[in-house]
Amino acid sequence: MPCLLQIDFPTQGPFGAAMTEAFTELAESIDGEPGLLWKIWTENRETAEAGGVYLFESHETAQRYLRKHTERLTGFGITGITAKVFDVNESLSRINHAPLRRE
Amino acid sequence: MPCLLQIDFPTQGPFGAAMTEAFTELAESIDGEPGLLWKIWTENRETAEAGGVYLFESHETAQRYLRKHTERLTGFGITGITAKVFDVNESLSRINHAPLRRE
Repeated sequence: MPCLLQIDFPTQGPFGAAMTEAFTELAESIDGEPGLLWKIWTENRETAEAGGVYLFESHETAQRYLRKHTERLTGFGITGITAKVFDVNESLSRINHAPLRRE
Repeated sequence: MPCLLQIDFPTQGPFGAAMTEAFTELAESIDGEPGLLWKIWTENRETAEAGGVYLFESHETAQRYLRKHTERLTGFGITGITAKVFDVNESLSRINHAPLRRE
């Protein structure tokens, strides 16, 4: 069953194109994480927050990534991380055209 | 630019198949919301939370829906709603196979 991971945290940036430049290599590395179907990179300059929404193929792979990524973010000096793991209600999500597989 | 909306709240259910049955009509209604690309319905029986991750085609349509849906949830008696709106970093998201359009 696909598993959704939401992570967000306070940050002063980089945002936008500078964020892309700073994290392209990290995105390429994340792409090889076991069980990852996709990640949407999120950012909000106004509220000074950023993060990601991920779809993993299982609860176990999501939890394993969450532990690894939390350690990495903490290593970047980031605090105040909010992380939530959810099951996906597939029937309702399919009604709303949700993308539950790798593109 | 696509805009991501995260909503979650404490709930005692329904979860799983009962959630599907309770909210199928609502999902069909949400599918007609202006600007909606997709919604993933989220649920976590263990932490007693549920919600949704949505992709809208613009910040404006996401904000408009958020106001409407918050009123609806409040009408259901739901409190403690967490809602966050984010821009999507498209370049990084594309590296990670993110689905940024309607299926």
